[in-house]
Amino acid sequence: MLTAQQLSLNTATVRSQWNLRQAIEGCARHGFGGISPWRDKLEELGAETAARLIRDAGLSVSGLCRGGWYTIASPLDQKAIDDNKKAIDDAATIGAGCLVMVVGGMVPGSKDIAGAREIVEEGLTRSLEYARTCGVKIAIEPLHPMYAADRACVNTMRQALDICDRLGPGIGVAVDVYHVWWDPEVEEQIDRAGPERLMAFHICDWLVPTTDLLLDRGMMGDGVIDIPKLRSRVEVNGFKGLNEVEIFSANNWWKRDADEVMRTIVDRAVDC
Amino acid sequence: MLTAQQLSLNTATVRSQWNLRQAIEGCARHGFGGISPWRDKLEELGAETAARLIRDAGLSVSGLCRGGWYTIASPLDQKAIDDNKKAIDDAATIGAGCLVMVVGGMVPGSKDIAGAREIVEEGLTRSLEYARTCGVKIAIEPLHPMYAADRACVNTMRQALDICDRLGPGIGVAVDVYHVWWDPEVEEQIDRAGPERLMAFHICDWLVPTTDLLLDRGMMGDGVIDIPKLRSRVEVNGFKGLNEVEIFSANNWWKRDADEVMRTIVDRAVDC
Repeated sequence: MLTAQQLSLNTATVRSQWNLRQAIEGCARHGFGGISPWRDKLEELGAETAARLIRDAGLSVSGLCRGGWYTIASPLDQKAIDDNKKAIDDAATIGAGCLVMVVGGMVPGSKDIAGAREIVEEGLTRSLEYARTCGVKIAIEPLHPMYAADRACVNTMRQALDICDRLGPGIGVAVDVYHVWWDPEVEEQIDRAGPERLMAFHICDWLVPTTDLLLDRGMMGDGVIDIPKLRSRVEVNGFKGLNEVEIFSANNWWKRDADEVMRTIVDRAVDC
Repeated sequence: MLTAQQLSLNTATVRSQWNLRQAIEGCARHGFGGISPWRDKLEELGAETAARLIRDAGLSVSGLCRGGWYTIASPLDQKAIDDNKKAIDDAATIGAGCLVMVVGGMVPGSKDIAGAREIVEEGLTRSLEYARTCGVKIAIEPLHPMYAADRACVNTMRQALDICDRLGPGIGVAVDVYHVWWDPEVEEQIDRAGPERLMAFHICDWLVPTTDLLLDRGMMGDGVIDIPKLRSRVEVNGFKGLNEVEIFSANNWWKRDADEVMRTIVDRAVDC
């Protein structure tokens, strides 16, 4: 059972309805404990203004979405490095608990997923060096394998933690139930991660049927994911952060009144 | 580089165009080495008639699709056991190289994927006992994680081989590139499987973008999968079977003339 104070709103959940200022006000109005902005929303407002508004609203920042996308070219491109530096700066400015990394899929035109993974690891290494100097934590978000080609070629907790093992302190994982719920070893990998590397916990649900690979995520309770089981596992392992609600839903939740969405989240959180 | 003689046609590839008799004739006409019928097509013709026609056409049978679907109810239902016995009998009748198992997703209404996996393992145990008495090999097909909820809760090679380790001789895996290409450990798991347990190799391609979770598979060469790399890996590990082409494609290949599809397959196989 979760209360609103234990929730964070990922702004993607109300992407069509609210700008960041409205989302901040909405979180305060519905008693949420925090917020997690996407960078496009952050840029509209400016990081410093956003930081002030968030602080004034009494919200914490569970994460900034997103850095990564290292695989725009091969070899690793300076533009990708620079863009991630900017994201790290912004994460520092708004006091984000972590910068969430969607690492990028395969290089356009390539069939070399192993090569893409090498680029990603090099990119993360570079970003981590800089993030450490800024006091920003880097959270790799393993994305569901259906996004391996075009969004993120890090697709399991095991793979993400193998990278973390190699890169050392300051880098961990963002555990999104949507991406990892199916994994037969998700629980043992959460145990392996431990408190320092469990940096974010995202919730939503997997609908049956799922009608779109990207934009048909479900509200908690409408699908098949055993959220309480996964939540208790990260908490047993020392995760003390907020439960960040991130729902991409072009044909349902994005079409509803945002306050209705927020109320529904709070209602459903009771059973999470 | 593959020749037509090294190919097997999975009848799903021309599901909309051909019945099994036509598919058998088509395979012979295009010089394919084998065929792999789905059970609905087999039932239309009858297993014994099909066996005779396939034999007369000089084709081998790389597999029968499909057994499994153990999770129609919890606990394991006798109907699922009996249906798999029938599939094993049919596989024996047509001389299939293996019975391909799509094990089933979660029990309807349940959020317990671990429980579904237990039912599946019990079902496979029961089927394997019977299959051994018939001389039929059982091939678990790990399905892409996006099917975990509603088609198959065995989703990685590692998971499938863990089951095989526990169940012993006579059970192995069907490696479909579409389902496993993204897996960071697919190659080491192919090595782990070895010649006795590599029972089938299915090819098609992963399109970018993929517009439907089920019915938008690509023709070899149209997507991002490095098929030669995976094929050489199974062959290095002793796999000597046919390369079975299985393409679900509601809006493209299922709408084309089946002989055009067959010619395209043969053309594309050169680069596989």
